[in-house]
Amino acid sequence: MAKIFEELEPIFHPRSMALIGASDKPGKVGRMFMDRFLDTGFQTLYPVNPGANEVLGLKAYPSVKDIPGPVDLAFVVLPPKAVLETVRDCVSKGVKGIIINSAGFGETGEGGKEVEREMARIAREGGARIIGPNCVGIYCPSSKLTFPMGPGKDSGSVGVVSQSGSLADHLTLIATHNGIKFSKAVSCGNECDLNAVDFFEYLGEDPETEIIVSYLEGIKDGRKFNHLIRAISKRKPIILWKCGEGEAGIRAAASHTGALAGAAPVWKGVLNGAGIVRVNSLEEILDTLYAFYFQPLPKRNRIGIISGPGGPAVGTTDACLSMGLEVPRLSEETKEKIRKVIPPAGTSFENPVDLSLASIVDKRIFSEVIRTLGREESIDMLLIIGIGGKEFHEIIAATTKDIDKPVAVSFIMPLETVVEDSKMYIESGIPLYSDPLRAAKALAKMAHYSEFRQG
Amino acid sequence: MAKIFEELEPIFHPRSMALIGASDKPGKVGRMFMDRFLDTGFQTLYPVNPGANEVLGLKAYPSVKDIPGPVDLAFVVLPPKAVLETVRDCVSKGVKGIIINSAGFGETGEGGKEVEREMARIAREGGARIIGPNCVGIYCPSSKLTFPMGPGKDSGSVGVVSQSGSLADHLTLIATHNGIKFSKAVSCGNECDLNAVDFFEYLGEDPETEIIVSYLEGIKDGRKFNHLIRAISKRKPIILWKCGEGEAGIRAAASHTGALAGAAPVWKGVLNGAGIVRVNSLEEILDTLYAFYFQPLPKRNRIGIISGPGGPAVGTTDACLSMGLEVPRLSEETKEKIRKVIPPAGTSFENPVDLSLASIVDKRIFSEVIRTLGREESIDMLLIIGIGGKEFHEIIAATTKDIDKPVAVSFIMPLETVVEDSKMYIESGIPLYSDPLRAAKALAKMAHYSEFRQG
Repeated sequence: MAKIFEELEPIFHPRSMALIGASDKPGKVGRMFMDRFLDTGFQTLYPVNPGANEVLGLKAYPSVKDIPGPVDLAFVVLPPKAVLETVRDCVSKGVKGIIINSAGFGETGEGGKEVEREMARIAREGGARIIGPNCVGIYCPSSKLTFPMGPGKDSGSVGVVSQSGSLADHLTLIATHNGIKFSKAVSCGNECDLNAVDFFEYLGEDPETEIIVSYLEGIKDGRKFNHLIRAISKRKPIILWKCGEGEAGIRAAASHTGALAGAAPVWKGVLNGAGIVRVNSLEEILDTLYAFYFQPLPKRNRIGIISGPGGPAVGTTDACLSMGLEVPRLSEETKEKIRKVIPPAGTSFENPVDLSLASIVDKRIFSEVIRTLGREESIDMLLIIGIGGKEFHEIIAATTKDIDKPVAVSFIMPLETVVEDSKMYIESGIPLYSDPLRAAKALAKMAHYSEFRQG
Repeated sequence: MAKIFEELEPIFHPRSMALIGASDKPGKVGRMFMDRFLDTGFQTLYPVNPGANEVLGLKAYPSVKDIPGPVDLAFVVLPPKAVLETVRDCVSKGVKGIIINSAGFGETGEGGKEVEREMARIAREGGARIIGPNCVGIYCPSSKLTFPMGPGKDSGSVGVVSQSGSLADHLTLIATHNGIKFSKAVSCGNECDLNAVDFFEYLGEDPETEIIVSYLEGIKDGRKFNHLIRAISKRKPIILWKCGEGEAGIRAAASHTGALAGAAPVWKGVLNGAGIVRVNSLEEILDTLYAFYFQPLPKRNRIGIISGPGGPAVGTTDACLSMGLEVPRLSEETKEKIRKVIPPAGTSFENPVDLSLASIVDKRIFSEVIRTLGREESIDMLLIIGIGGKEFHEIIAATTKDIDKPVAVSFIMPLETVVEDSKMYIESGIPLYSDPLRAAKALAKMAHYSEFRQG
């Protein structure tokens, strides 16, 4: 067990927490976090505010040093000028972890960097570790720690390391709405002390975490990171969005978190060699995560496409091929079975299987063809394209639940329709995409990762 | 005026139509189209069905030849075997256009191709033109012609040429829900007579059509097409999804519409040289169309990014750069103005402009910064990233309406939230994207097309 695991475990599972800068004034950040922690029901919460006797019904303290019991974690939402002194107070109090939400440090220039170095020195000498500054802290459902937008309260298997607080916040919120449950997520901020590499090491060892999702702008210890992700991704997929490439991107990253973003070609080599699942947007993180979270890995890269109507099958086949998937011909036996259930005209019993408009009128055509392709040996995964609706979903749910290959579904319909449908798919654990191209992309990423794991 | 325009104009604007194979039996295609044409209120509709005296309240005729008045257009939904004879009947009746919805011809093999050639010969000799077979026909709101899923009834400026009927159907339906209005859309089917090139020529001359959207698998007269699209795209943008590339894609296209799809490299050269706006999925067609439809073309390729919170700005900047956009530094004057309205910590007054979390609490920060960047000479278009909601939308709508540069908005939120928000954006004519990357892609396509138009 790495030293960092032992250091971080109590910070991610604190028995008590001081919210320094707690407030009951609506609109204040200190109020927003009070609301969140009261909502999750965090047990031993101490509001710290020198101007209040109590905050939202909890006894408040002028300083963290005045709190009678032990304090495992401090969450600091003060103006930047007051933070250094508070770090000193936390250290004298014996706090193990200090999350600094406040911004206005390294990202503003050299003066701020100097303060960060001083805070880190004080913390380390006093046996404490800092997360941030300029971060939204830790989301850990089993500890009742949460993010500003209030993602789900149930614990799961996805761990997140993000150098953008808002991205971590949006990612966990949207994914929660789509049935994903998280083990822990951390917003790294300016990384004056603990940094993304530490959190990767922690989540790599964390038995709760089975999939790691990450947004990175730059890495402070590239050599260690390289070594670490190679080892982790042999056991747990790492879905990574690496940003801050190119001159303007580096500029944006610098003002955002003060990170030194690296050149694109170097990163590319490192990440590809380590089997990292690369993505380029939050939507793509989510698309990819749904597939990895809900479906098994495919054995190989051979996809079966079932489409009714057939139009989208052509473009989807193009997309699959361009992403390195195979769209193999089917065995004679399988083709014969399909031929028996689909109409002779306007259809195709070859892969991609085109069920034609007939499948809209008689949705049971889908059942037979899905079951048949589920048993076809030359197919490692299924992409089903339909037109949505409850009846269609029930057929998909019933026919795919016994298939041990990954399945993704797509139908292209107006937004309003998709909202209702998506709820059914989430409940059934079937990833649903608003465009077959996006489904194909997610499946291709699974196939490439599976190849890395086996290779 | 090309001959094809004079031939197609009466087919797209028929004064009377025979629905051959009309039915009142639920589930039948002939019933579905009856319902659609009754719904749009097509004036002179003649159901043809030898087994019925009337269909849904309209007098029915045993054959098209028995209809007393003139018939401009025939819409055929018969089993494939009965179609050839019907084409003969239509020609004797003097019908100008014959839409054959029925499948089971060229896409099934050589026998079907032979029948197609025969039908085309009969039609041409009799002075009629055929659309299809294996198509969903024409959507033309001003003529009350419509598609199976029933898109909007108002006429607009977007023309569609699609070699997939279902794609044309879904595209027009979804786009209608998003505020787009169409001049005419046509599903080419197997193109036994009229083909995609004819429809491009028609829409190129059509004064109603200002933007052309197209899905193509293969082209019968490549030389003419090449010449034509070069001329059209100097005046009207052509948003094109070209499919059926690669071995399996060509196979899928062949069974889908019988089209001979061409090799990718040849197509790439032709399309790039002609200033074609290329896309690779239906979602991308829609994303791109929203920008072209609702916003003016940018003068050049310089984008201003305004983000609150700032996390997404870094990845969006990366994306813009990789798509050939510039993310220029701002003038000192502009920076000074921004500095006055945004908080000093955790923000950036350089491009991308990071408004930080403060912009969530005080959304008016957006107003000032949008207005300022709207006036900045070094910026040709704006991408605004926020967190959504009514108040945010009102600020965006009010501040962008006087800006003569293209604007796109994105916020990353759970699906349910986006549905409500999207309605407000549609009403204001501001393209809204569920991911900043998709907004950047659409704006980049506008910039590249604008460069082609000017060059």
